[in-house]
Amino acid sequence: MGIFHVELKKVVDESYEIEIGFCLEDKLISDIQNGLVGSITKFAVITDSVVKDLYAVRILNKLINAGYHADLFVFDAGEVNKTRKTKELVEDAMLEKGYRRDCCIIAVGGGVVTDLAGFVAGTFGRGVPFINYATTLLAAADASIGGKTAVDTPLATNLIGLFNQPEKVYLDIATWKTLPVRQISSGLAETIKHACIASKEFFDYLNVHMSEIFHIDKSACEHIAKENCRIKYEVVMKDERENGLREVLNLGHTVGRAIETVSGYKLLHGEALSIGIVAEVKLAYKLGYMTEGQRDDVTALLKKADLPTAIPAYIDREYLVKKLYTDKKVKNGQLRFVIQNGIGDVVAFNEGVYATKIEEDVAREIIFDM
Amino acid sequence: MGIFHVELKKVVDESYEIEIGFCLEDKLISDIQNGLVGSITKFAVITDSVVKDLYAVRILNKLINAGYHADLFVFDAGEVNKTRKTKELVEDAMLEKGYRRDCCIIAVGGGVVTDLAGFVAGTFGRGVPFINYATTLLAAADASIGGKTAVDTPLATNLIGLFNQPEKVYLDIATWKTLPVRQISSGLAETIKHACIASKEFFDYLNVHMSEIFHIDKSACEHIAKENCRIKYEVVMKDERENGLREVLNLGHTVGRAIETVSGYKLLHGEALSIGIVAEVKLAYKLGYMTEGQRDDVTALLKKADLPTAIPAYIDREYLVKKLYTDKKVKNGQLRFVIQNGIGDVVAFNEGVYATKIEEDVAREIIFDM
Repeated sequence: MGIFHVELKKVVDESYEIEIGFCLEDKLISDIQNGLVGSITKFAVITDSVVKDLYAVRILNKLINAGYHADLFVFDAGEVNKTRKTKELVEDAMLEKGYRRDCCIIAVGGGVVTDLAGFVAGTFGRGVPFINYATTLLAAADASIGGKTAVDTPLATNLIGLFNQPEKVYLDIATWKTLPVRQISSGLAETIKHACIASKEFFDYLNVHMSEIFHIDKSACEHIAKENCRIKYEVVMKDERENGLREVLNLGHTVGRAIETVSGYKLLHGEALSIGIVAEVKLAYKLGYMTEGQRDDVTALLKKADLPTAIPAYIDREYLVKKLYTDKKVKNGQLRFVIQNGIGDVVAFNEGVYATKIEEDVAREIIFDM
Repeated sequence: MGIFHVELKKVVDESYEIEIGFCLEDKLISDIQNGLVGSITKFAVITDSVVKDLYAVRILNKLINAGYHADLFVFDAGEVNKTRKTKELVEDAMLEKGYRRDCCIIAVGGGVVTDLAGFVAGTFGRGVPFINYATTLLAAADASIGGKTAVDTPLATNLIGLFNQPEKVYLDIATWKTLPVRQISSGLAETIKHACIASKEFFDYLNVHMSEIFHIDKSACEHIAKENCRIKYEVVMKDERENGLREVLNLGHTVGRAIETVSGYKLLHGEALSIGIVAEVKLAYKLGYMTEGQRDDVTALLKKADLPTAIPAYIDREYLVKKLYTDKKVKNGQLRFVIQNGIGDVVAFNEGVYATKIEEDVAREIIFDM
């Protein structure tokens, strides 16, 4: 009978800054005082049980001392708690304390906190602004650019969420000093992945400076924080909605994500990713895109970062193969992998196509051989 | 130490069409065949237990007959089920059936279904496209324009959700024939609200043609569907993020939403809204923005549409006053109301400010007097 046209074309500017430095709490407060989030005076500080006493309470107190209304919302640390249930608990606590649409969320913590808090921010009152104060190397490497927020479900990791850009990101390298060594290693997995897909030079840098990184040497840590931002930015900028190029960031994640889930999150994300990268370089070697030496160099660098490079004995290989199908890259029921091209590059299979179909048998063979 | 600039400025085009007509199922299928959602071949049809057998199964079968992969996801009808729990059940069922990012959601039903399904679409795989096939007058009046999706929580209605635009909306007026009369009335509440805020002419039309609408007369129903779209569109277009003008759509909702919650959803949305509109015109009269005659004309039209115009006896007035504070318009703990200016206009209190602070005592007096 009739067509009604709804015209919704507009220019959106979601640009933001990532500040890299040591002890940035006071900078955060002064940025807010200088209008970072406009005239907002209510702040929901979301953190986890580990980061709470280390940094979040400090930030909370600084906000209150500066005259703002602020509350702390704490959930139990760990990827296992990055769930819809935790999101619901945080939302209900915020509503209970009277938070509505006129607030700003500040996420203080690692990737689990920034993923969850960014998702809460995206749907609370249909969207409130949020700021990330990242306290881990992994968050610096992975969560600062791309706007990906999400929670996990029993059936898959990160499949429920949304793209949501923060107002600003702070990468406080001083906080890395309180990270367990295992967390530093975990963060290095994403860092090594970035080197593998985009920069042989950065790969070599990591090889040379690994020990300084573990000692939280300022200059080395600043360099890797910046390189992580730069590489991820260049990939994401060219493909914000993950239709093509952005898939290269999934290097190692097809197997990595599946192992993470099957391990019941006993493995940290970076640990699972490390094993996933090893599986992927074996595949790249098998397909002729890497030499034996390159394949072994990648595995050696992961080992140097104290990361696991074999599938733990307790993982059911057959179940793991089945889990590969929950990967986001799966299309029409077909497994798809990003494949490394030597070190510092990925294979482009076609214009804008950076993941390729891999038969289940091929994936199974590699998994059963690890 | 350093600032990294993330530039994210872009042009976004979320334009879409609303098709108004009788029996549009075949048009939906042919639109999909003609590329409405690109090359997608997997469709998750989300509906409720009432609409399922009336329309959703028919659409499902047409999709399957056209060669598409399609499944039905059904939840129990009623606003009481527009919850995070229902969203989770639908998501898990979709994941279980192998749905990933390469699918499209088709919402078949009223406002509850389109609100929930649009929210599921917004966060499933960080966003998949969705189509609304609206089967109620309320959905036609309220849910077709504005991109608002949400669920309710124990503490507030519609406070968890997001702005998400559909690929297309179908307003199938033939489906209104299967609506209970109570649902027609409920839909008319939003329709009357639109007339109150924007068009005295439309208000008069409703007065004259009320009986034809209840008989689902084609021409009258087409006219009100189009007027609903036109008025809402004009308001929403000028203020997509609800910072100012869009607040006028909240006319009657401050009290209405609160009554809906306090009634435990025994009252339909439109029924609660009707009572909210009466409260608001009493307030507008008290503040001198409406004459006694205009106030009574609004109440009379609501009665003509078989809508309640008094607060039911079972509602605890004091609890209702407390509930007003969960309204989205509350700022710095102050109640804010949209106020009608005669019939067909709202009061602009300032440049872009269409809601004004109302002291709790004033609101309480009106509520206790109804």
